[in-house]
Amino acid sequence: MSATHAANSDFTAGLSCKAQLVNKTLQRLLAERVDIDRDLKEALSYTLEAPGKRIRAALVLWCCELVSGRTNPDAEIAAAAVEMVHTYSLIHDDLPAMDNDDLRRGLPTCHKAFDEATAILAGDALLTLAFEVLADEIDEPALAVKLISELAQAAGSSGMVAGQMADLKAESPGTVGTEHLLEYIHINKTAKMFRCAAAMGAVCGRADEKDLNSLREFGLKIGLGFQIADDILDVSSTSEQLGKTPGKDAKAGKVTYPAVVGMKKSKELQKKLADQAVAVLKPFGPKADILRQLAVALLQRTK
Amino acid sequence: MSATHAANSDFTAGLSCKAQLVNKTLQRLLAERVDIDRDLKEALSYTLEAPGKRIRAALVLWCCELVSGRTNPDAEIAAAAVEMVHTYSLIHDDLPAMDNDDLRRGLPTCHKAFDEATAILAGDALLTLAFEVLADEIDEPALAVKLISELAQAAGSSGMVAGQMADLKAESPGTVGTEHLLEYIHINKTAKMFRCAAAMGAVCGRADEKDLNSLREFGLKIGLGFQIADDILDVSSTSEQLGKTPGKDAKAGKVTYPAVVGMKKSKELQKKLADQAVAVLKPFGPKADILRQLAVALLQRTK
Repeated sequence: MSATHAANSDFTAGLSCKAQLVNKTLQRLLAERVDIDRDLKEALSYTLEAPGKRIRAALVLWCCELVSGRTNPDAEIAAAAVEMVHTYSLIHDDLPAMDNDDLRRGLPTCHKAFDEATAILAGDALLTLAFEVLADEIDEPALAVKLISELAQAAGSSGMVAGQMADLKAESPGTVGTEHLLEYIHINKTAKMFRCAAAMGAVCGRADEKDLNSLREFGLKIGLGFQIADDILDVSSTSEQLGKTPGKDAKAGKVTYPAVVGMKKSKELQKKLADQAVAVLKPFGPKADILRQLAVALLQRTK
Repeated sequence: MSATHAANSDFTAGLSCKAQLVNKTLQRLLAERVDIDRDLKEALSYTLEAPGKRIRAALVLWCCELVSGRTNPDAEIAAAAVEMVHTYSLIHDDLPAMDNDDLRRGLPTCHKAFDEATAILAGDALLTLAFEVLADEIDEPALAVKLISELAQAAGSSGMVAGQMADLKAESPGTVGTEHLLEYIHINKTAKMFRCAAAMGAVCGRADEKDLNSLREFGLKIGLGFQIADDILDVSSTSEQLGKTPGKDAKAGKVTYPAVVGMKKSKELQKKLADQAVAVLKPFGPKADILRQLAVALLQRTK
């Protein structure tokens, strides 16, 4: 087995281990809330239990481990909250008025499995629940407030929601896709949530300012790289590989990296971002190997 | 002028004064956030600046004043956050997949003035912003966490979202409207947010446990009374009076108090709730007059 293969298999096992922990935390948080409306709970379980990769949540846990030597209960709650916000965003993005998608994580989207009203409300409920668990399950108030602030800023109208808004607008006929617009969309829609996940993990591990800023930068770089990979995969994959409908971006007239700068330059940019992300990790030494493997794994998705 | 008229005019002036303060706070919070996507900001301003009565937000301020003698900057932020969550819920409830309404606060609904995707995203952004301002603008972390927890619990899947879900389900043919179902819907959809507003105000004013619990109960009672009044007004008003489309509840087959228990019993119930709400205020003496006037004003909406 080559060194790259060994690293790959380490990474896959490491991600799967973290995904299990995240799934367990999500299940516990949902099960403990006995007051949740029954039909809503069904929709929440359906979307949360769909086989997501849990990359953002794993990033929270890995960054906590990197700065403090181990994960901790606060980071587990933070990881679950990040996954809730990510899942809410998928439910709403898939709605007919938005990207109108039928397939997500290999299953019918929430509004297909239930109905549109349920999907809107399930998304609203998940977004709210993310802030509720951070407020209720983190013992130290100052830490809870920091995490809530990070998450709200990344998810809201200066982050993910702004990115989705710009993404939808860019579909209108006559919009010229420029690299500048693309970068605005991808940074807001995707990269800020990766940056936030890395920061939340670092904060849970009581990182100092320097480490926190490094991990923030790492998160932003791999988040942008991840979204470019997504654009590339949309062009080159089947729905079985993707777990969602392929070729939709081009059909919808979305601005994507392959469409705007071409496939060759997209792959070069992706490589450059992975290199920059890995460079940021230098001061952490071998402890950061799993994050290096993450950067490489994201690159290899499109090979 | 009779005593009732004098109290009425005091109340109207008091509410209008609080509404101005809330509007100023909302404008400031939005203006300070320079990073917000421009198109989103337009939709947020449009919905936040529509002429709402700001009753929930005023309740926050009044309860803070009652327990501490004056309002304070924390209560002003809490009031703005409550108004943001209320406004998000109106935007999403009005969507075609939900109550499909064209008119709100006397203006075209958000999805009519903009489009459906913008309305979904504006709602998402407002909900997120409510938690962001509580985390960022309240100085004491323990207070911020308490407020966030209160708001998330009232707004989420054990509260407002659950109420809207049950309300929509109750529209399906064959559903028998019972008083039990009605109470579940109205308590979750409306009364818990009033209870939460009262509690947030009390918490901002550093209320003791006893006063906090009394104001919680007051909030729940007038919240339920408010929703019954809304049901009655839907039957008996014009769109000019309501600022939204009247007669929609009956047309949509919604379970409402007049439909389930009749108009006479609805008004009796409303009176009983107002009396119970006023009784809860007894220990506060004359300081609580504005809250008594609120209970009476809600009753008089339907006279």
